[in-house]
Parts: sequence; C-alpha cells; structure tokens
Amino acid sequence: MQPFELSLADAARAIATGELSPVELTDSVLDRVGAVEPRLQAYVTVAADSARKAAAEAEREIARGRSRGPLHGVPMGLKDLIDVKGMSTTASSRVRADHVADEDSAVATRLSAAGAVLLGKTHTHEFAYGLTTPQTRNAWDHGRVAGGSSGGSAVAVAAGEATFALGTDTGGSIRVPAALNGVVGLKPTYDLIPRHGVTSLSWSLDHVGPITRTVRDAGLVLAALMGQDRRDPAAGAGGWASPEAGDLSGLRVGVPRNYYFERISPDVEEGVRTAIGQLQELGAELVEVEIPLARYIQATLWGLMVPEATSYHERTLRSAPDLYTADVRVLLEAGEFVTAGDYLRAQRARALMREGWAQMFGHVDVIAAPAVPMTAVPSDQDSVEWADGTVEAVSDSYVRLSSPANITGVPALTLPVGQDRAGMPIGMQLMGRPLGEATVLRVGRAYQTAAGSEAWPRVGRLAPVAA
Amino acid sequence: MQPFELSLADAARAIATGELSPVELTDSVLDRVGAVEPRLQAYVTVAADSARKAAAEAEREIARGRSRGPLHGVPMGLKDLIDVKGMSTTASSRVRADHVADEDSAVATRLSAAGAVLLGKTHTHEFAYGLTTPQTRNAWDHGRVAGGSSGGSAVAVAAGEATFALGTDTGGSIRVPAALNGVVGLKPTYDLIPRHGVTSLSWSLDHVGPITRTVRDAGLVLAALMGQDRRDPAAGAGGWASPEAGDLSGLRVGVPRNYYFERISPDVEEGVRTAIGQLQELGAELVEVEIPLARYIQATLWGLMVPEATSYHERTLRSAPDLYTADVRVLLEAGEFVTAGDYLRAQRARALMREGWAQMFGHVDVIAAPAVPMTAVPSDQDSVEWADGTVEAVSDSYVRLSSPANITGVPALTLPVGQDRAGMPIGMQLMGRPLGEATVLRVGRAYQTAAGSEAWPRVGRLAPVAA
Repeated sequence: MQPFELSLADAARAIATGELSPVELTDSVLDRVGAVEPRLQAYVTVAADSARKAAAEAEREIARGRSRGPLHGVPMGLKDLIDVKGMSTTASSRVRADHVADEDSAVATRLSAAGAVLLGKTHTHEFAYGLTTPQTRNAWDHGRVAGGSSGGSAVAVAAGEATFALGTDTGGSIRVPAALNGVVGLKPTYDLIPRHGVTSLSWSLDHVGPITRTVRDAGLVLAALMGQDRRDPAAGAGGWASPEAGDLSGLRVGVPRNYYFERISPDVEEGVRTAIGQLQELGAELVEVEIPLARYIQATLWGLMVPEATSYHERTLRSAPDLYTADVRVLLEAGEFVTAGDYLRAQRARALMREGWAQMFGHVDVIAAPAVPMTAVPSDQDSVEWADGTVEAVSDSYVRLSSPANITGVPALTLPVGQDRAGMPIGMQLMGRPLGEATVLRVGRAYQTAAGSEAWPRVGRLAPVAA
Repeated sequence: MQPFELSLADAARAIATGELSPVELTDSVLDRVGAVEPRLQAYVTVAADSARKAAAEAEREIARGRSRGPLHGVPMGLKDLIDVKGMSTTASSRVRADHVADEDSAVATRLSAAGAVLLGKTHTHEFAYGLTTPQTRNAWDHGRVAGGSSGGSAVAVAAGEATFALGTDTGGSIRVPAALNGVVGLKPTYDLIPRHGVTSLSWSLDHVGPITRTVRDAGLVLAALMGQDRRDPAAGAGGWASPEAGDLSGLRVGVPRNYYFERISPDVEEGVRTAIGQLQELGAELVEVEIPLARYIQATLWGLMVPEATSYHERTLRSAPDLYTADVRVLLEAGEFVTAGDYLRAQRARALMREGWAQMFGHVDVIAAPAVPMTAVPSDQDSVEWADGTVEAVSDSYVRLSSPANITGVPALTLPVGQDRAGMPIGMQLMGRPLGEATVLRVGRAYQTAAGSEAWPRVGRLAPVAA
C-alpha cells in the first residue's frame, strides 16, 4: 500500500512510529495528484511548494518530539470557499477572480495549529449553490457527476489526492458528494464549528465539516476543528477519537416510516436497509419513527436559502451579473422576488420542525436513512423519473434527504454501505441529537469495524479512478 | 397617605410589619380605580371580585407566616396582550373579541407564584402597533396622549390604579408611555424574561417588563419576573433588590454626542442634561460617546418589525381585515410588500449595530439620554416640527430614541427627571450592557435617592389626575 492510500488514522500511526515521514506522505499524495488530477479536476489550486515546505517543517517538529497530534504532517485539501491568508478564495467563480484572503478562516487556523499540511483548494459548485460541481468528475466513473457543492473535496479524498478534506454543507453539500464518491462526510451540529472566513451561501443553514475515508478519521478531524488542544489532558474524551466500541446494545436506531424511503432507487433502499440490519445485528434496537412536518421540508429549505443567498450576493449581482454562471445567476435573481412573509413563514416552519425533531429524538438515539435518493447520475442527466411517475430535477433530488439536518441543525454523517448495480457507491446517513456527534460517530464506526474488509467499498479504500 | 398612593416597596414593608393588609391595599386601589377610571380608561377589564379573593388568600397566607416576598398581596395590572388563564386577551382589538386564554403566560405564572394580586387587563395600542393608545388618557392631562403601546399600564401606575403593572416593549412601548406619564419603565435585556403567552408584535424585538413608580420597585418586579425563588438563599443577590448605594464613583456614564440629543425639545434636553449633571455630582465620570450606525436605526426597526408583525397577523388579515382599526390595518398590509432582501438587510444591519454597541460599552457602563424627544402631545396632534425645519410624525418621533435598545437588545430604563413648561413629565433613559440590569437600576436608584423629595415629580408621587 502506498502512502497516499492510507487513512488519516493509519498515516498518523505510521508517522508516530517513524515508519512514515510527513514529507514522504505529502510527496506520495502530490504524485497522486499529478497522476489523476488531469482527469478528475478536483482542485482549483495545488500549492505543491508550500505543502512540501510545511511537511518538512512538521517532520522537524516531530523529530524534536513535539507532535501536535494525529493531523500533524498530514496533507489535506480545503474547499475553495475557505479563506487561507495570502491565497485566493475563488468559490469556483469568475466573480472572485481577484479575491485574495487577508486572514485565515477560523478552521484554517485550527487545522494549521494541529499541524495539517495544506495541499490546495478544491472545487465547489459555484458559490456552493448547486449539487453537481460540473468542473469535477466522479472518482468512480468520469462520466458521472461528482456531486456538490463540495465535489472537489469528496473526489480528492476518494481518489487519494488528499488524506482528508473540508467541505461546507448548507443543504447537503458535504454529504451528497461524499455519498456519491463512496467516502465519509460529517455535517456537525449547527454553530459547533466556527464559520468565520468561510464564504456564506445561507448563513442560517451553513456548516463546515470533514470529508474522510473512514468514520474514525472524521472524528479525528472534528476534534481538531473544535479546537481541542492536545496539551489538554482531557482532549478527545468526548469519545469520537477513542477506540471503537462495536457493541450497540441499548442504542435505539430510528428508521423513518415516511419521507426518507420515498422516491428512492431500489438499489439505494436495499443497500441502506441491509446496513440498518447490520446495526441491529450489532445490538441496536430498531424503532420506527415518523418524520414531523415532512411536507414542509423542501419549501422551508428554499424559503430560507434563496433569500439569504441573494442577500449575500446583493452587490455583486448588480455590479457584475455576467460573471456568474447562468444556473447560479438565475437562482440569485429569483431571490429578489421572495417576500419577507415567505422568508418568515420558512423561519417559523423551521422553529416548528426543530421542536418536532427534538420530540422524535426523545425516542431514539440516532436516525438511519439514505443520504441521497440515488447514486451518481451521468453528467448530462437533468432529471429523474420515480416509480410513482413523478419527475424530479436531479438537484432537487440530491438535496431532498440531506436538507432536514440543515434545517434542524442536527449532526449528520454519511458513510458508504455498498454499491448499486452500476457499481456506484451508496451512502447511509446517520443523524443524531444536537451536539450528539459522539453517538453518530460511534454508530458509524461500529458499522465500519464490523463490515471491515467484507464491506464494499472496503473501508477506507480508494476509488478506482478509471482511466 | 392612602394605601393606593404607596410605592410597591413601601406597601410591601407595611404588609410585612402588619400595618397594612393585602385586602386593605387592594380595596384602596379598587376604590381609586372606581374614582378615576371613568376619565382615564386605563383598563380593558377590571376583575374586582377575583382580585379581592386573591388579596384575602394572600392575607391568610401571610398571617400563617408564609410570605412569598415583596409582591405578595400587592395589586397590579397586566397589559392586555398577556395571557391569563380563563380571561380574554383582547389586545384592545375587535379581532380578539372571542379570544379566551387557555393557560397562563409565563410572566403571569411567575407573578402568581410571587403572590401578586391581578386587578385587571390594561389597554394597549391595538396589538401594540402604535405609540399613543387612543382609548386611554394621559394621567397628567386628559387632553394629551397616554403614549403607547403600554399606555393603560403606565396610566394605571401613574394614577394609583395599580401599585405596579407589566407592559411590553417592541420599539419603546414600555418606556414611551412611562416617560409621558412620569413613571418608571424597564425594558430588560432581550430574552431575559420569557415571552410565552404574550401576543407578539415582532418576535425578534419583543420584550416584557415592569412599569412602576420608583426604580427600586422596578427591581423588585424584575426579580419576580426572572422567577427568582425567595426560598433560594441567594435570591436577590444580583443587586437590584438590595439597599441603595448612592455613590457612583468609578462609574462611566456615556453621553451621546450624536442621535439622542438631535431633534428634541429644548425642555427635554435641559431636563435630561440637568439629570446627567446630577449623576456626575454623585461621582460618575461622564464620557462622550458616538452612537454607531445611527442613520440606519429607523430603517432597521421598521425593516424588522413590519414584516414580522404582518407574518404574525397573516391569517386574520385575510379572514377579517375590517376588524382592525384603519391605522393598524394599513401597517399590516404594508408588510406584505416587504421583500426578503429588505428584511435580511435589516437583520444584517442589526448584527452590525450589536457589534458597534458592544464596542461602545467597552468604554462606558451606562448610556444616559432622553427617553423620548418630547413630552406628551395633545391627543389631536399628528406631527411635530423641529427647529431644523423637519416635520416628523408623532409616532416616528416617540419611537426614535427608544428603538435602538430593542434593536440591540440592551436593557433600558426610563425614569422621570422633571417637567417641561407645560407641566408634563420628562423621562431620562439609562441603557446598559446586555444583562446589565443591576447597573442600570443602580444608577436610576442613585438618582432617585439623591433627588428624593426635591425631585419633580416627587419620587413615587401620583399624577394629579385633573378633573
């Protein structure tokens, strides 16, 4: 196994024992970037020189016995909405051609403090306002969508172009591309991770979080994003960075009877239900739950997101409308016609949904459901027809099952649980109570530990990156 | 002095020593209501029988040695937006003709737990959406406005028709009528006092708080509204219910160089500046401050309030528009044309203002300013012309100096500091840091203690209630 194939936890272990140096690891990942990037286009910018320099510095620090923890010397990518001082934050948009960040975002500061090595900035659907990331190709099939908006980060991690990456998630933008590329994505509880220095799509729904190849790795990155200091003797005591506890006895897993299994592909349904059965085999009790106010989810998401996005872009939309791609400009312009009454109705619906979800979580510890209704579609496919005869835009479909966790603010994890008949990865979503990251990660780890090398895709395995 | 003339603190002391019984006090206040209410119209409903019953019950409890604290057995009025189980909450509107509350509001529950005696429900400008309360007359001059929207509560307290009362304050609705009637009004920090069961005008700006005849009394009611339990040995340790500390040495009082002293009547300016001089004599250091983003205050208030109010009334506005009075219906209908972009711009301006005020409060402990730009105007006066030649609607004028504390959420107190040449009371406003109620009340008490019987109106004195 080459260094670029290692999970974060394995790379950290090898660095700690001296089997692997940060420079070797970074060189291996950069070589991989050189080999596959021309086909995948995961990155906007690769900063190879500064990455090598940072890796060498990490190597020296570690050699002096000053380890900063598991991220120290590990190469990673940041979605190009995340400010890094002195680098441009393009948001994959011509609007941002001349934008250079004058200070680090809060998450860049924290990753830097943890010793992570920045490889470069990854592609986003322009300004995070879409679910396909057309610049980038799916790591499993170059003819299919990467998913979005954190498509570059998910593809980079799936293809070995980064040991981990950060994405942002407003309606599902970490979980959708993670699911479509067979990797792990975590949208933490709203407000848990600071958004300072991250370009906003819709501030009341925006989240920053990790994309990794294993659930364990997601916990390691989360601890760093929360600013845990290794010198604090209790750091990591929250549980997500601790050894796996495979037994799920006493844990109640909610299985939605409505919404999440409606209008989904049979392969996705089978894959997720099989995985839920495995949670039961690990000791979990399955409890049927009713998703409250489900018919208002879509209107609430768009009712909040569209006007907030337009408000954020208000000035540029007037001064330079032609610099946006057409699909994003249309969405932004549509936001100018939303009334305050519509927006407030969405805000009030959100308040009711949060109450309803809090009640639901009185009966279960996590909810297990599909992350997306279907796997990655061919890049030229615009809509999908369901068994009930309804036709749905691809974007509406991809955001449908992820957005409730944005509206309610609960933590939500996606992890791969098999493949469909076209060979594309299926994602299972685990949602928990606000600040219930430890429980969500525990369940995900128990699944991955039990599945182990039996799992498809094998836990932590890279996408094939077909020629 | 008759019992209805007593301040809350004096009444509580007399009850505690056995000089006065809750029944005597309640009878005295009810007699006063009978005498002056035909002219003042402060109340929507007077519940004399249940008040007498509650007073008798309080008397029995106290006789058994089970005092609930200073509010026990003290008669008070609630603005008719505040739900009391089994009573109607009319909001002074025909829309609410058939509305009966099926549970107590949170504040009614707390006052009830503190043993206060409910006399009745006081008039509000319809649904709190106005600053005059046309049903009610000013306690000092029946030809002048009561101020609004908590006009009934302020007039009742000023005229001896209640020992204290509650109001609500969205843009100034506690402080404006308190100032115009020469009593004390406190708008606490946003979210400090629960709004459950209180009819909303604009939920992100709404506050509930006390109207009293002294600053000390305001502290006593605030402690009860915060749910402080007398059985907790530390209750009241927050400072506002403790003995006065008249020395203000070390305290920095901010005096605005912009906004608060612009376009105000010369009498109000003189009255407030004289009072500020007295704070300096008590040892306070005066510090000139610049109110940040002052030119956006009015647009921000209306940008938040108008759409939120319309959202709250959405259904009734469609089903029964003719039941609203014309001025309120026009405001509610106007809200339907506000765009989400306008609303979000106001939200963003509020965020910037909060930051700016937080910085300003790094340099001062309280800010002293007028509560309203002018005293109570004749009831038929619609607008005011200022020295700079500008003409302003009376409502716009009354809300202008009180609304910044609603936008920023900081605590704000008004207390009487003299009279203008027409003999009408002038209010000084003291604003503090979020959760800085103790400091604001301390400064107000120091002023009232020093002014004592020299003050006009004499501290705690009733309005003359001219025939």
